[in-house]
Amino acid sequence: MPTDAPTTDAASHEDDAPEKDFDTVVVSGIQPSGRLHFGNYFGALRQHIDLHTEHESFYFIVNYHAMTTVQDADTLRQHTLDVALDYLALGFDPDESALFCQSDVPEVTELMWMLLNLIPTSRLEKGVSYKEKVNAGLTPNAGLFTYPVLQAADILAYLGTRVPVGADQKQNLEIARDCARWFNQTYTPDDPLFPIPEPYILDDVAVVPGIDGQKMSKSYGNTIGIFDEGKELKKKVMSIVTDSTPLDEPKDPESCNVFALIKLFADDETQAEIAAKYRAGGYGYGHAKKELLQLITENFAEARARRKDLASRPDYVHDVLQQGADRARARVAPVMEKAREAVGLAPHV
Amino acid sequence: MPTDAPTTDAASHEDDAPEKDFDTVVVSGIQPSGRLHFGNYFGALRQHIDLHTEHESFYFIVNYHAMTTVQDADTLRQHTLDVALDYLALGFDPDESALFCQSDVPEVTELMWMLLNLIPTSRLEKGVSYKEKVNAGLTPNAGLFTYPVLQAADILAYLGTRVPVGADQKQNLEIARDCARWFNQTYTPDDPLFPIPEPYILDDVAVVPGIDGQKMSKSYGNTIGIFDEGKELKKKVMSIVTDSTPLDEPKDPESCNVFALIKLFADDETQAEIAAKYRAGGYGYGHAKKELLQLITENFAEARARRKDLASRPDYVHDVLQQGADRARARVAPVMEKAREAVGLAPHV
Repeated sequence: MPTDAPTTDAASHEDDAPEKDFDTVVVSGIQPSGRLHFGNYFGALRQHIDLHTEHESFYFIVNYHAMTTVQDADTLRQHTLDVALDYLALGFDPDESALFCQSDVPEVTELMWMLLNLIPTSRLEKGVSYKEKVNAGLTPNAGLFTYPVLQAADILAYLGTRVPVGADQKQNLEIARDCARWFNQTYTPDDPLFPIPEPYILDDVAVVPGIDGQKMSKSYGNTIGIFDEGKELKKKVMSIVTDSTPLDEPKDPESCNVFALIKLFADDETQAEIAAKYRAGGYGYGHAKKELLQLITENFAEARARRKDLASRPDYVHDVLQQGADRARARVAPVMEKAREAVGLAPHV
Repeated sequence: MPTDAPTTDAASHEDDAPEKDFDTVVVSGIQPSGRLHFGNYFGALRQHIDLHTEHESFYFIVNYHAMTTVQDADTLRQHTLDVALDYLALGFDPDESALFCQSDVPEVTELMWMLLNLIPTSRLEKGVSYKEKVNAGLTPNAGLFTYPVLQAADILAYLGTRVPVGADQKQNLEIARDCARWFNQTYTPDDPLFPIPEPYILDDVAVVPGIDGQKMSKSYGNTIGIFDEGKELKKKVMSIVTDSTPLDEPKDPESCNVFALIKLFADDETQAEIAAKYRAGGYGYGHAKKELLQLITENFAEARARRKDLASRPDYVHDVLQQGADRARARVAPVMEKAREAVGLAPHV
């Protein structure tokens, strides 16, 4: 037994760890939570797509984690496929970085077991995310409870150094950072196995209102899907809430939900033109909604076409995920070999 | 989401499960907790050895579970090897059943993750074993907390139907039984994947006193090791606590710790002879201890010689564990394939 039992205040040990250079490796889990919407796109997805060409990156669809709430096989399979199609359609290049299913690297569950033994139960009891989910009505099962430890294993297995997170999720990473520290202190004090992963805070400047004006979120039922089209898309755009200023009167673009969405899609020149029409009067919200509809349609036209094409070629998508999984397992294999030796599981004789 | 969310009272659903015949398969985890003593031998080990030739059996050294308390690699490796040597020396025949290391079947950690999502956190909080361990001073880490779920995965992965347990450990099996029920109800209601494992209660008629007269237990520091010998063994036997009846006087064998141990090793005739000497007087506890020492030495002579031989052939022991692991993985592979499909992890496209 180590004399330094893990505590929730392990940060103080950090300076003791020997220096070691780790390459920049981006690790990010993608929730297969059904159809993605503009909030997902501008909050994370767009930046994921930008990032994956800059550094070696491992992007995995977290179907293990989804099991905490989705307990229907067909739903899980469909959501997994959907999110793979979404990422590929929106520009993820499988030759640049690995896109794969979390469960194709089952080694992460073994690493999770190693990490569970380093984490005080009390630390998980304090988990804000667990409490929030339970308060939101999810069954408080042991999978939800240990969720952050699997997340930590996912990051550490790839020797991840950089984890893209929204500004509000920074603390999600703290358990992974502590796990890395505790493992290194307990088992590999002289030659730390795991880097301490850093959060990479995604810009959250874009405010994405839902059709009711609240923040766009699946839980509010106010979303517009990235791949919505035709009547469905039109109906949603036309139902965006506005005030009741009459058509003739001048309007303030900055307080309008429609204009907030227009800003996400239009270039500066177009934005300025539309803002001028708002202020001039004689330009109604219906006109603005039509311009927004046009902008959305144009913006995602290519991705929409690509998604349809990909959906008709499941073998190709399968191959992409397989290729990503092969790359991921090749990355994880030597890490797990070292971890197993460090904890004493191997060699066993 | 299933309409039948897991509850702690799932037993009531049992009658709904379709009938399905499963072959008798014995599953038993062996703790690599250092040197085994007479208490281990007469309480479980001897019966494990008897059982393994009667049914297809999977006996695995639980090095994953040991990580909940042993966080030193060399200690874990040494204990793992020791217990393999012990079992083989005492008569475990690797051609009859599989003897292997738990961590050579890492699939059980993946199954554990599946099961974690079916278990209410509150169920684990009520775990008597967890509470006892924490009260005994062990760090309340999340590994100890989720220990019974890995145990359940170990049993279910082999489609185990029969689990040898001491009479006092019967409730340890309840979580595994519930996990089997919950998985079947949630994911495979029409064709249950897992049998509901039954406890196989080991006889616990043998009272094994330690050298201080309390129940022999590692935690009391009063043990005599199965493979103790020479001066060490003699010193322990000679220090067994007795009363202070003078040598000349008659003695009651039934209230004597030395005689309690003699009964475990001597045949009926020898027991009767020694009991008669106790009652006749002129026979001291020192004489009895010498007879006990002789009995122990003879009883384990063959095993002791075999253990020394095995210890000098690590390659052979390695091969035995490897052969056991191959057999175990062949058993587990189709089960995990079905489980992954049932929960929706595979096929992913």
